[in-house]
Amino acid sequence: MRILILGGDGYLGWPTAMRFSAGGHKVSVVDNFSRRRWHVQHSTGSLTPIRSLADRVEAWLQVSGNEIGTFVGSMEDADFLERVIAETLPEAIVHYAEQPSAPYSMKSREAAVETQYTNVIGTLNLLFAIRDRVPDCHLVKLGTMGEYGTPNIDIEEGFIEIEHKGRRDTLPFPKMPGSLYHLSNVHDSHNIHFACRIWGLRATELNQGVVYGVETAESAEHDRLITRFDYDEYFGTVLNRFCVQAVIGHPMTVYGEGGQTRGFLNIRDTLQCVELAVTNPAELGEFRVFNQFTEQFSVSQLAELVRRSGEELGYGVEVRSFPIPRIEAERHYYNATNTKLIDLGLKPHHLGEELVRSMLRIIERHKGRVIERAILPTTRWKPGELLGEVEAAERRP
Amino acid sequence: MRILILGGDGYLGWPTAMRFSAGGHKVSVVDNFSRRRWHVQHSTGSLTPIRSLADRVEAWLQVSGNEIGTFVGSMEDADFLERVIAETLPEAIVHYAEQPSAPYSMKSREAAVETQYTNVIGTLNLLFAIRDRVPDCHLVKLGTMGEYGTPNIDIEEGFIEIEHKGRRDTLPFPKMPGSLYHLSNVHDSHNIHFACRIWGLRATELNQGVVYGVETAESAEHDRLITRFDYDEYFGTVLNRFCVQAVIGHPMTVYGEGGQTRGFLNIRDTLQCVELAVTNPAELGEFRVFNQFTEQFSVSQLAELVRRSGEELGYGVEVRSFPIPRIEAERHYYNATNTKLIDLGLKPHHLGEELVRSMLRIIERHKGRVIERAILPTTRWKPGELLGEVEAAERRP
Repeated sequence: MRILILGGDGYLGWPTAMRFSAGGHKVSVVDNFSRRRWHVQHSTGSLTPIRSLADRVEAWLQVSGNEIGTFVGSMEDADFLERVIAETLPEAIVHYAEQPSAPYSMKSREAAVETQYTNVIGTLNLLFAIRDRVPDCHLVKLGTMGEYGTPNIDIEEGFIEIEHKGRRDTLPFPKMPGSLYHLSNVHDSHNIHFACRIWGLRATELNQGVVYGVETAESAEHDRLITRFDYDEYFGTVLNRFCVQAVIGHPMTVYGEGGQTRGFLNIRDTLQCVELAVTNPAELGEFRVFNQFTEQFSVSQLAELVRRSGEELGYGVEVRSFPIPRIEAERHYYNATNTKLIDLGLKPHHLGEELVRSMLRIIERHKGRVIERAILPTTRWKPGELLGEVEAAERRP
Repeated sequence: MRILILGGDGYLGWPTAMRFSAGGHKVSVVDNFSRRRWHVQHSTGSLTPIRSLADRVEAWLQVSGNEIGTFVGSMEDADFLERVIAETLPEAIVHYAEQPSAPYSMKSREAAVETQYTNVIGTLNLLFAIRDRVPDCHLVKLGTMGEYGTPNIDIEEGFIEIEHKGRRDTLPFPKMPGSLYHLSNVHDSHNIHFACRIWGLRATELNQGVVYGVETAESAEHDRLITRFDYDEYFGTVLNRFCVQAVIGHPMTVYGEGGQTRGFLNIRDTLQCVELAVTNPAELGEFRVFNQFTEQFSVSQLAELVRRSGEELGYGVEVRSFPIPRIEAERHYYNATNTKLIDLGLKPHHLGEELVRSMLRIIERHKGRVIERAILPTTRWKPGELLGEVEAAERRP
């Protein structure tokens, strides 16, 4: 199959590219290196010493004998994107190419506009390019569980059957996301659904939980193939950050009481899910939504798991409550459905102490690279508010 | 009250500005004249001979003795917008400043991107400017009934209580709009809701039906105060277009069987509704949605009404079925709630033959200005499709 990976230089994009390439598919990647650029702007970087895209592709050719095509450019550049699609004629497109950070989207007006512009307009350009060049192509778009927010009813997979005043319809699940980044995904979702309804395109949205882990079957084959691993305020996610904090002896920063519950999954399961979506495509005109996570945890459960796992390796890990920089409920109902990918054959890697210890061991190897300054949150959802409180917490010894 | 009208040179913006000014409020308008520019690009224009904004404001000062402030610039220009808000310190902002045409948004990738960029990024800039400069200000944003699409259940006002698996929540009403323009309003809606939830702003979204009519109490006071009246493919709406067609002897272009049902309201009721929203503001942190229409009609009912009304004035009006350029259901369930504005005191002007005849008489005065070429639809929702059929219909004598 001809597969195009948008954002193919990223945390998930690069391992996905290798996975499909290993599976015998003809893979090309598109990236504009915005993640690398944002890190340079913040004087931060990946914990793992990632190679340039050209190096990675060369290393992969040596390891696997397979070529991966590369295109450097932005999806906001519609002419570039259409040329890439006309040249590669993909049968499936996996779209990771978005600004993916909630705190980044909340740090300023400029960053909010950049996020919604990059994500929404980029995806809109993509829909037109698919319509005009490869209308049968299956779009697999990474979304986020964060689109749903934390409603007081069970979260379904994209759609919900509503009975109302004696009538029934199955409609898009209502969305109340918690950041301007998550909103950009809600906007994408509505636009993609429209393109399927009106133009007859086919798409699968993978509303992904929080991903953890760093190694995949392919990246383990050579050091030069390692994927990025972010732990900083903007691009780090909670479990990855806790593991880095455990290794460097930094207290684990639990926001508030840590009652926030979310869906999580292992990076290896991300690859499984994307593969299942691509090999079981949506029908023409169909817009499917799969909730892509394997387990639900509260933040304090994760902190406790990392503490226990770390202790066995000799890390004395402290948990510290930190004022919540976001506006979110600390205690809330949360129960999300995730059966569609299981039905397609997903075999989850469950999270446990052994898995956390394997992450801690990888981080231990690179701990000299940790930039501690980058860990604590400085972006508040509501500017001004909490600032004094947060600063006090930061000064605490 | 200090009131800022965004899009204050437009079809509804200008009459709204005069209305509030007549009511003793301190009114300023912002406009970048994009509607005038789009007309120039398409070699079309308003049926009514509208004056420049400066002329209008001067005429209004002569007629009423009241000044209206003017600011020329775009909401996409965040610095301009923030300066205007810092200078005028509005207590209420009425936001009409969007690209409002569904066919325009569907005519090309460029127009689609322009629509979503202008509308979504402009409104996002506005939310930040309100947050940072006038956090108590009440935002009254014009949305559209088209955001809901045509679900098989009753349409509620913005939110719906859902019972699901034994639990309950009141959540945003699911949206399945029919064009990339309508989608831009759905995106705005989600962003504004977020700003109210997270930043504590206050906003009312007025999901408006199709507006008809041209004259308001204020515009009737002097020729130079007349508002624009569009009947062209892009900016004309169905009843206004039928009336123009009746006067110039052009067959009324009903798309398909004309079974499409929508909410409608008189331009005078738009002003009443906006006034009711402004004078009964939302609470801080509240995001309210009012469905702003007074009656529901199918397209064929409207065509029949115009035919009957026209006959009495001696117009021989023919109805002609035209292939539907949009992708939409011709027959569908449609029942939308609209009690909130009635509860606030809205007294509807109902549509009837006398009202249609008064529109026909105003149009008769300006019929020498009609550009017939601009009436028939050339934009198809699905490019290529229907084209042959539409061209055949156009060639029909």
